[in-house]
Amino acid sequence: MERQRFILDESRLPKEWYNIQADLPGPLPPVLHPVTLEPVKPEDLAPLFPMEVIRQEVSTERYIAIPPEVREIYRLWRPTPLVRAVRLEKALGTPAHIYYKNEGVSPAGSHKPNTAVAQAFYNKTQGVKRLSTETGAGQWGSSLALACNMFGLECQVYMVKVSYQQKPYRRSLMHLWGASVTASPSSETEAGRRILAQDPDSNGSLGIAISEAVEVAMKDDETKYSLGSVLNHVLMHQTVVGQEAMSQMEMAGEEPDVVIGCVGGGSNLGGIAFPFLRRVLKEGARTRFVAVEPRACPSLTKGIYAYDYGDTARMAPVTKMYTLGHSFVPSGIHAGGLRYHGMAPLVSALAKAGYIEAVAYHQNPVFEAAVLFARTEGVVPAPETAHAIKAAVDEALRCKESGERRVILLNFSGHGHFDLAAYDAYLAGKLTDTEYSQDQLSASLAELPRVQ
Amino acid sequence: MERQRFILDESRLPKEWYNIQADLPGPLPPVLHPVTLEPVKPEDLAPLFPMEVIRQEVSTERYIAIPPEVREIYRLWRPTPLVRAVRLEKALGTPAHIYYKNEGVSPAGSHKPNTAVAQAFYNKTQGVKRLSTETGAGQWGSSLALACNMFGLECQVYMVKVSYQQKPYRRSLMHLWGASVTASPSSETEAGRRILAQDPDSNGSLGIAISEAVEVAMKDDETKYSLGSVLNHVLMHQTVVGQEAMSQMEMAGEEPDVVIGCVGGGSNLGGIAFPFLRRVLKEGARTRFVAVEPRACPSLTKGIYAYDYGDTARMAPVTKMYTLGHSFVPSGIHAGGLRYHGMAPLVSALAKAGYIEAVAYHQNPVFEAAVLFARTEGVVPAPETAHAIKAAVDEALRCKESGERRVILLNFSGHGHFDLAAYDAYLAGKLTDTEYSQDQLSASLAELPRVQ
Repeated sequence: MERQRFILDESRLPKEWYNIQADLPGPLPPVLHPVTLEPVKPEDLAPLFPMEVIRQEVSTERYIAIPPEVREIYRLWRPTPLVRAVRLEKALGTPAHIYYKNEGVSPAGSHKPNTAVAQAFYNKTQGVKRLSTETGAGQWGSSLALACNMFGLECQVYMVKVSYQQKPYRRSLMHLWGASVTASPSSETEAGRRILAQDPDSNGSLGIAISEAVEVAMKDDETKYSLGSVLNHVLMHQTVVGQEAMSQMEMAGEEPDVVIGCVGGGSNLGGIAFPFLRRVLKEGARTRFVAVEPRACPSLTKGIYAYDYGDTARMAPVTKMYTLGHSFVPSGIHAGGLRYHGMAPLVSALAKAGYIEAVAYHQNPVFEAAVLFARTEGVVPAPETAHAIKAAVDEALRCKESGERRVILLNFSGHGHFDLAAYDAYLAGKLTDTEYSQDQLSASLAELPRVQ
Repeated sequence: MERQRFILDESRLPKEWYNIQADLPGPLPPVLHPVTLEPVKPEDLAPLFPMEVIRQEVSTERYIAIPPEVREIYRLWRPTPLVRAVRLEKALGTPAHIYYKNEGVSPAGSHKPNTAVAQAFYNKTQGVKRLSTETGAGQWGSSLALACNMFGLECQVYMVKVSYQQKPYRRSLMHLWGASVTASPSSETEAGRRILAQDPDSNGSLGIAISEAVEVAMKDDETKYSLGSVLNHVLMHQTVVGQEAMSQMEMAGEEPDVVIGCVGGGSNLGGIAFPFLRRVLKEGARTRFVAVEPRACPSLTKGIYAYDYGDTARMAPVTKMYTLGHSFVPSGIHAGGLRYHGMAPLVSALAKAGYIEAVAYHQNPVFEAAVLFARTEGVVPAPETAHAIKAAVDEALRCKESGERRVILLNFSGHGHFDLAAYDAYLAGKLTDTEYSQDQLSASLAELPRVQ
């Protein structure tokens, strides 16, 4: 039988994270303070993050060592498998080879623990008692709950209300790992109360939930904040995915022509793409990189590249990124992890420079691809992940037309075990494909800070 | 770092199943026809099973080749990891080494696809159109749905009503893989209607659901029946687990002193234990084997070794086994997969002969062990699996007292992603530990067929 699963021994677990800031064509635009709109200083960020995380956020060292305590937790599930989706290829009748890196095997079911464990560790070593955070579909919240549990930290999660209601099991998972979970917007914070005053039925959004979590950290010396995507250090922690995938593609004797990831904040795409992107930046390789987003929240395909706040209440730092505006509230699609108004500055800069392409899909065709994947490969994808699968399927179908035998690598960022209600809705024909309103977009873009 | 994950390359996927019938101290007592109570002939079983499955059921060949088509599906997730639970050991402060074989990584989340895929394949090659089956917690039903989907068979699942209500996501999973699912007892079958007439609020049981599924297969030439545990061929298909574990324990340089599995019908214990048990039977090894059952359904610890029907409506073959009586209906514990009145004839005979020990636990201490496991190792166990974990924890604590450094191997038969409501109930202090009533047991034992 031809080999189709590429498994690394635990001795091959990466020892360093790859920091793409060392290899960018130019430096990232500076991060601004949300009040002064002047470049932030490390001490401005100190109430939110431990010093080592702040150092990593701005570092231009190419490789940063992964602490042994972090690797000790990583190897509860890492290295993760790389699998060639042979049955999917056959079902599509494509000459393309499709590989998926299965990050769904982590205890929380996604790639998110890769950074959660690192962040919890650095907070623990700095004596922090509690982490606050937001979560969309619960992938991030459950991952930080897991990580805090492993290092004996308390964990307070603000969960976007629509997901809190749709995904009760991810909430249970957070409780099981000892976290406290609050539906956002909540009346626990000023930011939440302001939103509720305007719209008592608010579905919530990642932007709002971030405001709540940031506010709690700002007001309590023993609490710091942890973000599951967007920031440079988060994307760097995720590069264990791409580094492993690179070794595994070598085992398979192939080189990816296209690397695909879904994007909410951008971390799973960054994680799998950056080690391969280094070869493009430094060695002239010609790999393509595709970011896949929902049509309901299309920051790369319909947003603008501009300075914007990271959160709705304008408490988080201001970065230059593709954004729909910090007050943009996407419809309640099932891919809750992709409902973020902005995009990681690193992904944004690389997209702006032409290194990363973007494509957007409605959720019905995305679920169609997810069902095909589940019925051919067995594994059930998260709705977020299904966006990457849809793009891979389309790429493979183009290969079928052209007869090209391209090698496609996608980040299977998480399983869909806690999203089965969404599959029920899809199979019952009850999923709607909502377009955002142009008026809403214009209104939210009008609220960008004036520092362009 | 000391190694803790033992991963086999896909080239090490077993090529044969191990059939312990070749090595038993004596032959199994004959299987009887449910109506005549005379030994069954292969043709009696032909309406239910394809001929190759019937042949395997009675075979005494030591090794039976796994068809390439079955291995092709197995390797979507096999070989599965063997992991040393180092963090659990530390939390317990035990000198024991605890290893778990993680069968939760299959697409359906348990060991069950190991036999589902084989059975679906043999039915497909014999031209069968549809498989009917029962399921408790849904582990088996979702596995057969997956397998039928892979080979293009229809699948009809009768799901025990209490689980149908408690585990909606396993139902969704079956739908996703194209199966039809009916709550049992149902009004679709005579067996179901009889039960509903006596008790319209019946919680259902595996025995009742089996009757429904068997009835459907008996009445339709294009439908055959598939059983997820109990029978000899099922336990044999599960020996891929033990064979892999044996290679992995060699990688770890250790030999298990104790092998532990939870038991409903007995297949996950048989699967991990039999390859090791062969060494006891043939080579004088002194490994212990522990079957762990719920106090609510304690067939090995409180049942008797006698001939009994496999199902409530007396349509399934009569086998000699440990049984609580075919009319025994256990309380609605969350470990739905362990709610079966009988025990695999192979496990029963080996328990009777002293090769397998048994222990029974209430669900609260079982969930306590499950939470400890989830908080140390990360992975969330199914309530069934948690029974094996509880026994492993107790064994490790005895080692702590005695100072012995025993090697414990447990079958982590499945993850608990679809059982989080049970964790919620446990953490909220709402789980009850129900003892069966002695009157109920006496009444059901009085209904055994008179062929002792």
